[in-house]
Amino acid sequence: MTCRISIVGAGGWGTALAILLSRNNHTVRLWARNPAHAAELRDQKSNERYLSGVPIPDTVEITDHLADSVAGAEIVLFVTPSTALRQIAGSLAAQGQLPATTILVSAVKGIEHGSGKRMSEILTETFPNNPTAVLSGPNQAQEVARSIPTATVIGCRPEKLAGRLQQIISTKTFRAYTSRDVVGIELGGALKNIFALAAGMSDGIGLGDNSKAALVTRSLAELVRLGTALGGKRETFQGLSGVGDLIVTCFSRQSRNRRVGERLGKGDSLNQIMESMEMVAEGVPTTRSAKECAARLGIQTPIIDEMHAVLYEKAAVAEAMRRLLSRELRTEED
Amino acid sequence: MTCRISIVGAGGWGTALAILLSRNNHTVRLWARNPAHAAELRDQKSNERYLSGVPIPDTVEITDHLADSVAGAEIVLFVTPSTALRQIAGSLAAQGQLPATTILVSAVKGIEHGSGKRMSEILTETFPNNPTAVLSGPNQAQEVARSIPTATVIGCRPEKLAGRLQQIISTKTFRAYTSRDVVGIELGGALKNIFALAAGMSDGIGLGDNSKAALVTRSLAELVRLGTALGGKRETFQGLSGVGDLIVTCFSRQSRNRRVGERLGKGDSLNQIMESMEMVAEGVPTTRSAKECAARLGIQTPIIDEMHAVLYEKAAVAEAMRRLLSRELRTEED
Repeated sequence: MTCRISIVGAGGWGTALAILLSRNNHTVRLWARNPAHAAELRDQKSNERYLSGVPIPDTVEITDHLADSVAGAEIVLFVTPSTALRQIAGSLAAQGQLPATTILVSAVKGIEHGSGKRMSEILTETFPNNPTAVLSGPNQAQEVARSIPTATVIGCRPEKLAGRLQQIISTKTFRAYTSRDVVGIELGGALKNIFALAAGMSDGIGLGDNSKAALVTRSLAELVRLGTALGGKRETFQGLSGVGDLIVTCFSRQSRNRRVGERLGKGDSLNQIMESMEMVAEGVPTTRSAKECAARLGIQTPIIDEMHAVLYEKAAVAEAMRRLLSRELRTEED
Repeated sequence: MTCRISIVGAGGWGTALAILLSRNNHTVRLWARNPAHAAELRDQKSNERYLSGVPIPDTVEITDHLADSVAGAEIVLFVTPSTALRQIAGSLAAQGQLPATTILVSAVKGIEHGSGKRMSEILTETFPNNPTAVLSGPNQAQEVARSIPTATVIGCRPEKLAGRLQQIISTKTFRAYTSRDVVGIELGGALKNIFALAAGMSDGIGLGDNSKAALVTRSLAELVRLGTALGGKRETFQGLSGVGDLIVTCFSRQSRNRRVGERLGKGDSLNQIMESMEMVAEGVPTTRSAKECAARLGIQTPIIDEMHAVLYEKAAVAEAMRRLLSRELRTEED
């Protein structure tokens, strides 16, 4: 069952998915926003900026023309920065290129500022008649591109569509599970990046594995508290796209958000870090959105609050970490 | 509030607790089973075998005489290998050295073979009139001994005793929380070592962070399934002594059980590993006990079963890992 798939966004994850799906014998087009970057991908047959060292198969067609990139696609997989999705989806809608039969899949991890909307909500608002799904899990792009065994989750309500996407996306080394809890799958992927910033900060200021384990344990509790208040299911947060993605992002040396936190912990300013990074660290905008959501619902989120204080209110990293680690002695159930 | 505390067992964790409690101004005696080892500790003023590089304060009294070590103690903290606890506690009971007012605390992580009993059950059977408690959490001994911020949990039913132990054990950098779920606290600490063996095996055969995240996610589900069937509370397994201890043991470079798994993954036999290690890897005996418990209760434990096959049934590591990673495609809820 081969299929025409368009991938909108040529960061590390978009490129890894293009490589994976192309190996799976689908017809893949990959859209890069920046024409110079698209030319690089075509010339070098690899994405050295974001996914260094992995060859892109010749069969992947690379373009910087958005309308062309989705023409004739049965599935469009969105892998843009979260802050760019509404604008890019809006352009596609304005060009009227997508018939209502095209399946839209979001692999974007974030929450919209101001509206508090999830990425699939943005897609549904923009394309109200198209079937939509989400893809999220503990998936470092480099490992997926190198066929190291990986599991992921497709969140999708109609079971038939979930099963179809599962067949299309899965390979022997990339196993997709399905879930009907679209909300939980998306929120797990979005919120964990905030906690990875905090875990990285703990590494950066020289704390150890014990401190980080305590912080990640509290992070999981906070993720479940806010995630269920926002409509996700508790069990989803215990699965691959919740605790699984949280731990890999908090512990992996490759995790971008953990690395940003580590640099904050070592004393670099957010501006310095952002200027030196090619890639987007989604935890940074998501911290702002998550704090807005928590405030609206009256949910206690001490870790998100401290990350917000560090990123947006000039709080000192050491002070923020001290506040997180020095809560009063009490029972664990409190 | 200083206190006379005896620590029974001079491995890495027992020694770290002796150092911690002595810094906290308690009067501490540390019992080492092996007279030569006790002499080393006294001469070198450090435990180079098990906790290299951390000085033991002069105020810690070191002895290899069991009855002497507990004489006059208000609290006896057991930090023996799990397979030795019944015999050591039995010797103490036979000598009639412990009045019924002495508080007994188990920091031993394991489950008894054959009986399926937890360590605190062994203490309660041996000393039916003494108050007992347990101590468990994501606590690498080296970090605790070096005063790197750490959180732990005291499991204890009478609230007054829990509060007292909390005050005695806590320092600014070692924060003890309390819980009434003694069963859950103990099982979290015991079972996670099995999953750390599996996580280490995944590292050893060269799998990546994505694979390990998927494996640890399934491990948490299995820990909750077996742990609740054995009487622990679901919420406890979401806390420090459950998911917290699980992730630090599966990811930390310092974790002994993870390292044993890694060597298995690289092709060493269990015998080779055991012969070359000074320390006990509790996951090895606990795998056998946990499989017995699961079989008795009819609980599905695929990861424990594969570890049992590798450790005790000569199964090939690569085959066991392949079975764990290649389950059929299906919904995540199955």
